[in-house]
Amino acid sequence: MKIAVLGTGGGAREHTAKLVELGHEVFVGTRDPEATLARTEPDMMGNAPYGQWLADHPGVTLLSFGDAAAAAGEVVINGIDGHNAVAALTGIATSLSGKTLIDYAVPFVYQHEAEHPWPTPWGVMPKLDPCDTDSLGERIQRALPEAKVVKSFVTQEQSTVVNPKAVGDGDHTMFVASDHDDAKRTVTELLQSYGWTDILDLGPLVCSRGMEMYAHMHSAIGFGLGQQFGGHFGVKVVR
Amino acid sequence: MKIAVLGTGGGAREHTAKLVELGHEVFVGTRDPEATLARTEPDMMGNAPYGQWLADHPGVTLLSFGDAAAAAGEVVINGIDGHNAVAALTGIATSLSGKTLIDYAVPFVYQHEAEHPWPTPWGVMPKLDPCDTDSLGERIQRALPEAKVVKSFVTQEQSTVVNPKAVGDGDHTMFVASDHDDAKRTVTELLQSYGWTDILDLGPLVCSRGMEMYAHMHSAIGFGLGQQFGGHFGVKVVR
Repeated sequence: MKIAVLGTGGGAREHTAKLVELGHEVFVGTRDPEATLARTEPDMMGNAPYGQWLADHPGVTLLSFGDAAAAAGEVVINGIDGHNAVAALTGIATSLSGKTLIDYAVPFVYQHEAEHPWPTPWGVMPKLDPCDTDSLGERIQRALPEAKVVKSFVTQEQSTVVNPKAVGDGDHTMFVASDHDDAKRTVTELLQSYGWTDILDLGPLVCSRGMEMYAHMHSAIGFGLGQQFGGHFGVKVVR
Repeated sequence: MKIAVLGTGGGAREHTAKLVELGHEVFVGTRDPEATLARTEPDMMGNAPYGQWLADHPGVTLLSFGDAAAAAGEVVINGIDGHNAVAALTGIATSLSGKTLIDYAVPFVYQHEAEHPWPTPWGVMPKLDPCDTDSLGERIQRALPEAKVVKSFVTQEQSTVVNPKAVGDGDHTMFVASDHDDAKRTVTELLQSYGWTDILDLGPLVCSRGMEMYAHMHSAIGFGLGQQFGGHFGVKVVR
């Protein structure tokens, strides 16, 4: 399939590499491809410069957000950070029309952006905006009524999402939520191709509230397990 | 042990019955014992009148909140609903001083209490207050600096908390968080006596934010699994 991945951060790279490995034609979108390629320093999360990563991953085409989305057949993965996603996606709405848009972002507001930071044992505890009575997934769907937004991937590190068998032989649960059943089926098939066997359909997109709010629990569990896990664990819904 | 359970709702009844079964001396606290016993109608959750329940559960002593807390040796379980917990507990702070106070409440604000309700596929979707940058667990600890608050039980139906083996042979995870390590050990032992084998210490009480916010995910998973599960499932942290 022709699949677009919007974003060049760590999570987007995980999906890009995996999709190429699975034989898909992958179009990566970035705000300004020339600027992305011109960077020679690691990004703020410590990821290597994208140009360097791209040299190690042949078969990936780097384009603008809009050109990448337009090049996609059916599936677009949104790896734009939660803070900027609505604005960036609204600008390319036409290219996303009728397509399955997978959103895995948590709408974190970081302490350095906040008037009143929230000290915690982790040092940094972002807050969520929106939260509780709305979600980023729903906001994106409202901003792009012609796209089919599916919230998924968000309860895991993306390196685990693309390689579920690395944790507990893969016997853990992935969640999907959307108001579009056909798009949910498409994402379920993609997840199966990643190796997921336990994919739970939570129902409509309103469930992205719980999925995004789970982010604090995910952090707490990672903290409880200790650094040696590096966030690499799963949650299994036990019936 | 002499244990107090504050509250007469469904969850409080589960703990009360289980603790009696385990041989503890249980003191149940209610706002007004006479009024509680005078009720002849089911409560708003459909539970049978407490007097009737009490007749079927000999060995339980019904007292006021303060008298029940004072009668407890080391452990008090707070089953007062999240909306009223801080006020009710603050009024009996002296009787809780130095004791382990287990809080499992979710600070739900229900639609009928709200100016702007939040329609969802469930019909009712309560919001959380506090949420994200504070939690009920932390509020209770701030209001009762002499008590040792432990947040736990909150990620499960209380009928599952007292009987973990009813779900997936008991191989799922229970979480504890507290700023008091000795109190956390006490709660861990209590959970072991309930049958829990996988108890994950998330760390300090700030983690109750994630535990309480998980409530929406718990609802969504229950919705996804379907009514036949009636909320009876577990989550296993897969390492």
